[in-house]
Amino acid sequence: MKLTTIREIYKNREAYLDKEVTVGGWVRSVRDSKTFGFIVLHDGSYFETLQIVYHDEMENFAEISKMNVGAAIIVKGILVATPQAKQPFEIQAAEVTVEGVSAPDYPLQKKRHSMEYLRTISHLRPRTNTFQAVFRVRSLCAYAIHQFFQERDFVYVNTPLITGSDCEGAGEMFQVTTMDLDNIPKTEDGAVDFTQDFFGKKTSLTVSGQLNGETFAQAFRNIYTFGPTFRAENSNTTRHAAEFWMIEPEIAFADLEDDMELAEAMLKYVIRYVMEHAPEEMQFFNSFVDKGLIERLNHVVNSEFGRVTYTEAIELLEKNNDKFDYKVYWGCDLQTEHERYLTEQIFKRPVFVTDYPKEIKAFYMKLNDDNKTVAAMDCLVPGIGEIIGGSQREDDYEKLLGRMKELGLAEEDYGFYLDLRKYGSTHHAGFGLGFERCVMYLTGMGNIRDVIPFPRTVNNCEL
Amino acid sequence: MKLTTIREIYKNREAYLDKEVTVGGWVRSVRDSKTFGFIVLHDGSYFETLQIVYHDEMENFAEISKMNVGAAIIVKGILVATPQAKQPFEIQAAEVTVEGVSAPDYPLQKKRHSMEYLRTISHLRPRTNTFQAVFRVRSLCAYAIHQFFQERDFVYVNTPLITGSDCEGAGEMFQVTTMDLDNIPKTEDGAVDFTQDFFGKKTSLTVSGQLNGETFAQAFRNIYTFGPTFRAENSNTTRHAAEFWMIEPEIAFADLEDDMELAEAMLKYVIRYVMEHAPEEMQFFNSFVDKGLIERLNHVVNSEFGRVTYTEAIELLEKNNDKFDYKVYWGCDLQTEHERYLTEQIFKRPVFVTDYPKEIKAFYMKLNDDNKTVAAMDCLVPGIGEIIGGSQREDDYEKLLGRMKELGLAEEDYGFYLDLRKYGSTHHAGFGLGFERCVMYLTGMGNIRDVIPFPRTVNNCEL
Repeated sequence: MKLTTIREIYKNREAYLDKEVTVGGWVRSVRDSKTFGFIVLHDGSYFETLQIVYHDEMENFAEISKMNVGAAIIVKGILVATPQAKQPFEIQAAEVTVEGVSAPDYPLQKKRHSMEYLRTISHLRPRTNTFQAVFRVRSLCAYAIHQFFQERDFVYVNTPLITGSDCEGAGEMFQVTTMDLDNIPKTEDGAVDFTQDFFGKKTSLTVSGQLNGETFAQAFRNIYTFGPTFRAENSNTTRHAAEFWMIEPEIAFADLEDDMELAEAMLKYVIRYVMEHAPEEMQFFNSFVDKGLIERLNHVVNSEFGRVTYTEAIELLEKNNDKFDYKVYWGCDLQTEHERYLTEQIFKRPVFVTDYPKEIKAFYMKLNDDNKTVAAMDCLVPGIGEIIGGSQREDDYEKLLGRMKELGLAEEDYGFYLDLRKYGSTHHAGFGLGFERCVMYLTGMGNIRDVIPFPRTVNNCEL
Repeated sequence: MKLTTIREIYKNREAYLDKEVTVGGWVRSVRDSKTFGFIVLHDGSYFETLQIVYHDEMENFAEISKMNVGAAIIVKGILVATPQAKQPFEIQAAEVTVEGVSAPDYPLQKKRHSMEYLRTISHLRPRTNTFQAVFRVRSLCAYAIHQFFQERDFVYVNTPLITGSDCEGAGEMFQVTTMDLDNIPKTEDGAVDFTQDFFGKKTSLTVSGQLNGETFAQAFRNIYTFGPTFRAENSNTTRHAAEFWMIEPEIAFADLEDDMELAEAMLKYVIRYVMEHAPEEMQFFNSFVDKGLIERLNHVVNSEFGRVTYTEAIELLEKNNDKFDYKVYWGCDLQTEHERYLTEQIFKRPVFVTDYPKEIKAFYMKLNDDNKTVAAMDCLVPGIGEIIGGSQREDDYEKLLGRMKELGLAEEDYGFYLDLRKYGSTHHAGFGLGFERCVMYLTGMGNIRDVIPFPRTVNNCEL
């Protein structure tokens, strides 16, 4: 049986008007009078609903009228224009078949539910307006990112999730093991015997695909990753999840300026794509979640992003130290309050902050000639703060090795990474975009738990 | 500095001929005579190389001539047509700048290396012809899959990687923990105290996103997942990896026939897309990896896939039992030898085998009216055997619960899944495609370790 989707009807209404169509979907509401009734039907293909009119000549009129919210039905009827009504058209049904009833205790009723409650039913919340909008935008946003990079001939690389290295400190990582936790194998001297584990060594879940990605950039020139990453941080905030997705492009024969141009072009591309492909959803967010969202996003698309060095930014912020909980000074890490002040109050548009002190950035960032700062950049956007962090990478073997030694990193763990500086090293750069933060930015949703289908946070791993 | 890519030059040669261009890339070979020399340059943007001619008026002529394979250079010069030569054009260089030398012990030399050796240098092997071709095709294949589903308005869903359930038996799963393995916390009665773990419970890496995906199909109607999955199987074969990517679409208001149509359309779409976008790479595979590959793929694209029930297939195979290591009988699981015989010898094209005995299939598959078989389908293709497995899902609450009880599954672990049959259940279906198996099929590569950037297998978790 071929069903027409509500999306097809809205997008190509002339082809369907005054013709028989068959649609299937879930009941949002039913109201009946003695001789006829109305069903509001949603089929998941489109944000808008479709009105169905049914009548008492149907032998299952009573069955239809007593359906609960959430029931699944298939409707055959004629699509007719309704120029006098709020909705543009409706189906005058000839047949309504109940595909699946909805039990009386259906947890979603017509009233508005709290986000906290909806998080307890993550298998049902995608049926609500808010999560229909969120998860369609998430899907479109993911596709826009792939399309942006593929149009530019970047190679998509699936970097590994299980890793034997621990680049950012083992404390934040989840361990992966097949050993019996009831009976951990031990060596003669009492240590855990990882040779008996699946991989014959200690393994964890990755926190970043960057170092692996760089190896591919030195072969394909322009690459990107887009996959899950993990943090075992015991932090219970609205912005942190234990499992989230990251996009990490790496570009060879490229410097920090190229990196910023790429980041700016990507963000604008994604915003434009989502606004064009989900106008109903974006209007919904603008009306019910974050007033001013569309104006803000339009402003970003039409702005040239600002550029300021960290040193200049500190000077600008120091003049406003009375406004901050944490006072700024040269050498400090910027907090969200500082980032938002810069982008919202000072620049009034997205801004790249560049050339951070080397002490607060990662070992692989390229040392500037001043020997104090590195060629790093953070992209700050109004309403969020940092959305992208990137850098030119240190491409000099000796300088990279020196920095690793300063920080006490074991040379043998990074042999492959040093090799890239030994065999045909190029100047190159890259950045990371947290995918969920991007979706929050595009939707105005305030809690990362509400932009992930099944979020994982401390003490929470349901379904 | 804006570099032109070798891809741009090949794709739009008229725009560049007789003009100055600047390119950057890695040296595949250098040979010099007294007054001039030739460099074969590869820049990762395109499968083909570009010839550079340099001459002794350059002050770094000697430096250039003694470069090792793998060195990175930037070349400025005029692109000129070479109608008499093998290659269509070359660059007559005005400047060659050595960006990064390649140390004398560079592990990749001009000779052919074995696949086994190349697996030991997974950070460098993408620089070889074979892996340039493999990983570009992998990238294009991934994008084709996204494009196929997005064009049809499917919603992309990121199902979780860390899971608290163990749908396919805990034996095959990796455990995820932040507990100190040296000192596992225990309860009073001596059991592992998972309340002290990060999630407050036992957690593992997922083996499938299907059940989560179904919850979204009952909200969005058509969805797909595309993400990593894990198997802790202690099997050392050319077809199994511990970490691999899967595509799992789920479609509501759909039966097994719709499912097969979707699978067939997807496979044909992906093959067409890759052959169109990577003709040089496909020609390479056809010449050096798997002779007959292109003919076989063209045949698949132009065939209507066959359909046969399991029961019919067994009858056909039984007549050839003398050819098999494992004899077939009704009720047996099909081995690769049987699958390949069906698709290669009997049907001579891809074929769907449907309606398997319920005993050899998963609990969630829809029971047929015969009470003996389920509405399952496996798609078999020549050269591989099974590439896709799917089914219509059991949408009846009582039947699903009954099957779970027969198999001893705990009802409380599947409450969310049963809810889908309680609140607006629809007939629905889905399938799973192993992404790596798809890439192997498209490239003719015989070992799964050679289509994954950094493969994870038993005792192997390098980089």
